Formats: sequence, C-alpha cells, structure tokens
Amino acid sequence: MKFIIQRDQLISSVQNVMKAISSRTAIPILTGMKIEASQSGIKLTGSDSDISIESFIPAEENGIVHAEQIEPGSIVIQARYFPEIVRKLPEKTVEIETDGSLNVTIRSGKAQFNLNGQDADEYPQLPKLQTDNHFKLQTDLLKSLIKQTVFAVSTMETRPILTGVNIKLENNTLSFTATDSHRLAAREIPVNESNGSFSSIVVPGKSLNELYKILNDSDEDIEISVTNNQILFQAKHVKFLSRLLDGNYPETARLIPDQSKTTINVKTKDLSHTIDRASLLAKEDRNNVVRLTTTGENLLEITSNSPEVGQVAEEISVTSIEGEELKISFSSKYMLDALKAVEYDDVKIEFTGAMRPFIIKPANDNSVLQLILPVRTY
Amino acid sequence: MKFIIQRDQLISSVQNVMKAISSRTAIPILTGMKIEASQSGIKLTGSDSDISIESFIPAEENGIVHAEQIEPGSIVIQARYFPEIVRKLPEKTVEIETDGSLNVTIRSGKAQFNLNGQDADEYPQLPKLQTDNHFKLQTDLLKSLIKQTVFAVSTMETRPILTGVNIKLENNTLSFTATDSHRLAAREIPVNESNGSFSSIVVPGKSLNELYKILNDSDEDIEISVTNNQILFQAKHVKFLSRLLDGNYPETARLIPDQSKTTINVKTKDLSHTIDRASLLAKEDRNNVVRLTTTGENLLEITSNSPEVGQVAEEISVTSIEGEELKISFSSKYMLDALKAVEYDDVKIEFTGAMRPFIIKPANDNSVLQLILPVRTY
Repeated sequence: MKFIIQRDQLISSVQNVMKAISSRTAIPILTGMKIEASQSGIKLTGSDSDISIESFIPAEENGIVHAEQIEPGSIVIQARYFPEIVRKLPEKTVEIETDGSLNVTIRSGKAQFNLNGQDADEYPQLPKLQTDNHFKLQTDLLKSLIKQTVFAVSTMETRPILTGVNIKLENNTLSFTATDSHRLAAREIPVNESNGSFSSIVVPGKSLNELYKILNDSDEDIEISVTNNQILFQAKHVKFLSRLLDGNYPETARLIPDQSKTTINVKTKDLSHTIDRASLLAKEDRNNVVRLTTTGENLLEITSNSPEVGQVAEEISVTSIEGEELKISFSSKYMLDALKAVEYDDVKIEFTGAMRPFIIKPANDNSVLQLILPVRTY
Repeated sequence: MKFIIQRDQLISSVQNVMKAISSRTAIPILTGMKIEASQSGIKLTGSDSDISIESFIPAEENGIVHAEQIEPGSIVIQARYFPEIVRKLPEKTVEIETDGSLNVTIRSGKAQFNLNGQDADEYPQLPKLQTDNHFKLQTDLLKSLIKQTVFAVSTMETRPILTGVNIKLENNTLSFTATDSHRLAAREIPVNESNGSFSSIVVPGKSLNELYKILNDSDEDIEISVTNNQILFQAKHVKFLSRLLDGNYPETARLIPDQSKTTINVKTKDLSHTIDRASLLAKEDRNNVVRLTTTGENLLEITSNSPEVGQVAEEISVTSIEGEELKISFSSKYMLDALKAVEYDDVKIEFTGAMRPFIIKPANDNSVLQLILPVRTY
C-alpha cells in the first residue's frame, strides 16, 4: 500500500474515525485504525464494537486531487500516536507506505516515522446493513434533534434502556425521546417522502453524542437505515454505525400531563439567568434545588437556601401568569438544561400542582417538550 | 459596613485575591476573603499563609468613581462562592452591606444574596514589611524573568530549596536562577538606581507562578522589597507578599561549562518543531528521550526510538555547526522548555561532549542561559 495525501483531509478524517476508537477494548486490534487504499480513494475505519465509523477520502473530488500515486492495499496502524503525528507533520502532503513486513512509513518533508502495523485481514468485518428501512433528514435538523434530547438520558447503568434515546418513525413523524426518570426531553418533526417506519428503537446516548460531534452543520441530507439491532447514519463521506439497545423503552406518553393549573410565559434568558444565580449557593447541598413562588401579578420569586452558606432570592417579571398560585421546588440543573434545549426566546411552563411533573415548551411550538419532576422539600 | 461598587472592578480584584486563597488550609478563616471598606476605597485580602495578596479599589481614580455610599467597616466572606456570585450578578453595580450579626447582603438589580460572614478581627494580621531594601522594575520585565526561569524549578519535595527560584541583586545586576538538578534556567538584567542589594534569596516557584498570573503586561514599575524571610511585590493597587524558602541555594555557577567543543546555531522554531515531532513516539517510554546527531555540513538528524511503537527520524538544516562531531541524547521536554524560554528566533547551543551538560542561549545575547544534562543511552 502506498499513497500521497493532503494532510488537512487526512487530519479531519482521522479525527472523525478516532471518535469510535477506545484504548480500553476487549479486542486488541480495535485499538488500531484500519487504512485501506484503492484507486478511488482512502478509507479509514475505527470501531469499539458498539460504534463503528468509516471515513472516505476520495482520490479526486470536484476536480481537486486529495490523494495520488495510490498503490492499493491495507494496514491497521496504532491509533494512539497516529492523530498527533499527522497533525504535527511539517508539510501539506503526507506519504504513507507499507512494506511486506507490516511496517508503515509516514513521510512528510524531511520527517519520517516508522511504525509497527497489524494485518488488516485480522480487523473485524463491519456488518453490512441490508435493509430497505431508511429515510433521509437534513444534517442540521438531526443535530438539533440530538442536542434537544440526548442530555436527558440516564447515566446510571441500573436501567440500561434509559441510557439511550428512544427514536420512533410513525405516520411520517420522527420523534426523539430521552428520560432518566427524573426528567424527560422530547422532540418530534414531520418527515416527508419516508420509505421507512419503525415503531420504537433505542440508540445509545453515547453513540448520538459522538455522531453529533462529527456531523457538520450543513443542510445536506443524511441517510438513516435501521435494522432490528443496528442503525446506520450515512453522510457524504462518513458512515456511522451503532448498535441499538435491547429491551422495551418505557411508555412515556402517559407521564405527560394533559392539563395545567398554572401557566407561566416568560423570556427564556430572564428565567435561566435568575435560576443560574439562585443555584450558586445550592451547588452541593440538597441537590441544586431552587424554589419558584408566584408572588403577584406577573411576578415570580426564585429562592434557594443553604443553611451553612446563606440564602439567595430574586424577583423576576414574567410575560404572564395564568391559573392558581404556586410554590414548587425543582432541580436547577434540570431546569437550566431544559431551558437551553428549548432553543426559543420565549417559553411556556405548565404546572399542575407542586407535586406533579411540569412541562416546558417553546411559547408557540409544541414540537419540543421538556418535562421535569419537582422535588419534595417538606 | 456598606458600599456600592462597580461590578467589573470588583470581579478583577476578587480574581486577583483568589490566587492566594486555598480551600485546604490549616487556619479555617483563611478560606475566606477579608473585605475592608474605608472612605478611600475597598480593600480585599486573601492569604494561604505562604502567599498573601491585597487588592485595593480606590473609591475614585482619575475622576472615575469606582465605589460610593461607603460606610466603613470590615467582614470576612466565604471565598468559595463569592467569585461566581459577583461574576453572575445581573447589574453593573453591586451593593454589599453587613449587619451587626455578621450577615452579609449582596444586592444587584433584583437579586439578593445573604451570606454568613466571619469577624474580620479574627483574620490574621499580615506582617508589615519594614525594610529599606527595595528596588523597582518594569512589570513586563519582571514577568519575563519569571517566565524564563520558573518552569525549571523542582516539583519534588526531596530538596525543598530547589522548588524555588534563586534571586540575587548584586553590583546593579538582578539574576533569577532555577534548577531541578537535571536542567537549569537563568536570566540576568541590569538594574539602575538600585537602593537595595541582597546576595541570595529563594522565592517559592508557586508564588512566582501566581504573581505572574495577576500582573498585567504593562511597563509600569513594580516595587520589590526584601527582608530575611519575606518578599513583597507592590504594584499600583496590588500587594503580593510571599514567604522565602529557608536554606542555602546550591552554587550553580560552577555547573556552567566555560568552553565548548561543538557549537550549533539554529532557528529556534525549526529545532523545536523537529524535536516536538521526534518526541511523539517517546511520550512514555524512556523519559521522552531524543537523540541529536551531526550528519554533515550544517545538517543535524533528530531521532527517537520506541521499540514497541516504532522510530522517527528527521534531518534539519542549521545555520552553522562548528567544532567536533556529536551524538547526544537528552529529554525532549527539557529541550522544548528551554527553546521556548529563550524567546529569540535564533539560538546558539554549546556542547562539550555527549556526557556533559550543554547550554542553550539566544544567538546574540548572553543574559539568558538554559542548561540541560544529557541522558546516557548506552
């Protein structure tokens, strides 16, 4: 195998593929990165067996040559040193060459690295997804769906199914739902021209976090294919394959109250800044709990109390308060996460009493829903 | 005590004083920050008993009012929460007020924090330095002296004296020297109009690192006063007091070779980039060792070898090589630190054989000196 490649192209491909490579893996060869050269271009592969990422650098694209003098072949290279080597090479092009004894030579300018490689035939074959169950989505929309929900997955392994995001595609509606049983984040969007449908799959939160990092904010389409145990995200030159979580995702629809006793409309930033300040003294004591009290016409008070340190109180003017008076305590962290995920300047918060879950939504959009369980403070 | 103060002024003063405050201290009140208000302004004090920092915010300066409605008094406030509270307050001004029961109220806009304070009379008195032994230095010059030497102090407590920087003021020359016994960094500058002189003091590296962070890159003078156990750096509104290390600093002058057998002149960046690359494979094995070999007229080769991973070699053109051929191994980290500290585009490296310490200097300036002990590799 031999080729000369543009260093910048190689750096960005290596960075993407590294997201799937872990130094702690039961299969030693997976600590490496597979490099395959063919006349059409260079393919890099990384995997930790939960996530696999393939990144392809075409030899030529739109008349621009990315790789040349290609002699086909393949090798697995230690992934631990490779990214930093590539990043620090002195010239704009890099030559990578293997010999018959699995030695890899990396040349750039007068710098030469000789690394011990491994046989690419020993690298596990990635499963080929054979399914017609696929649909397309704009990349920036997919990123937004991930960002608005994935933060709410559970980080506890006690209920593994909750460490994933529940994805459904039914009636031309795509929905993402995540919950750690203390809060829930959901978003749905219409999908047109859909070939696929699946009632309910669960994608590991970790996979979606890594996918989020390697996707560009573009309006190009990404193709999503689903089988009964895997999901494949296919962008222009990147394939991202993740296993699905086994098990039934809990029915979340019944958690969501369908009526409200107190409805507050407020500027998102006003509320989040006030809660952020109130949470400053609650950092460790009492799980970041703050209290919200309706105090008058279009006025709330946000308070927090940490006996050893002190108290904080702040009044905030809101756009409107409708319904019953309210005193409710909740995790400031959950509230700040939810307000951030809403991504609108104005939010509507619907309460049904101090002991019931409450809902945060954009003021004029029902496609985003954040739900938080209050904290009992007496 | 009561005053209203500009938040930005308070933020920057609090940040400076926090550099001296540690949450792990044997004296509990030192986890707090002392605030003293007088008609002339507001003084903040922090100390971990090794370092003490006082920052003063004048009530008025150059016609600009920083603090007003001052009712004199003092309090000690928990330093753990104070910086973030001040940083996140909603308005440009902050009101701070104490009552007779050591309660502190912080108000800004509609936000109000009530914190438990401590009696300022219980805060230890900072020693008053009574000495005529002082001199002045430009702030940016002091920062440069610190930066070029302090990285070379020892981080091991086995020889505590080496964790400090040796400072001498003799014959109108100020010198800074640091060594961890594997390398040495030294810088000297002429000081005019000096009132003071001291043959040798040792300032903890940690103190100089913190001082470096709070000093601005200005050409304003800083006044330095020395007693037999303390040093005081006095800038416009900041006083920085550090204890000195006890003990005799080793005589370092005799370590420095006074002749050379091989002299290499090279572009600093060329050499540092090459050594940086060569060190990539040596990260953990063999203590980051790289090898330098003279290979021809104005040519060096830098190599490194890590049996499990691979080898790296790079040829580099230098400005000149004079004297004997050379093969020498050394820590790439020490060399990179030294090249960075030189702060000149061209360096001169003087070797006296593979087993002897070598010297790195700016090509045309003897005031900076970096010395490195080679590594025996056979």
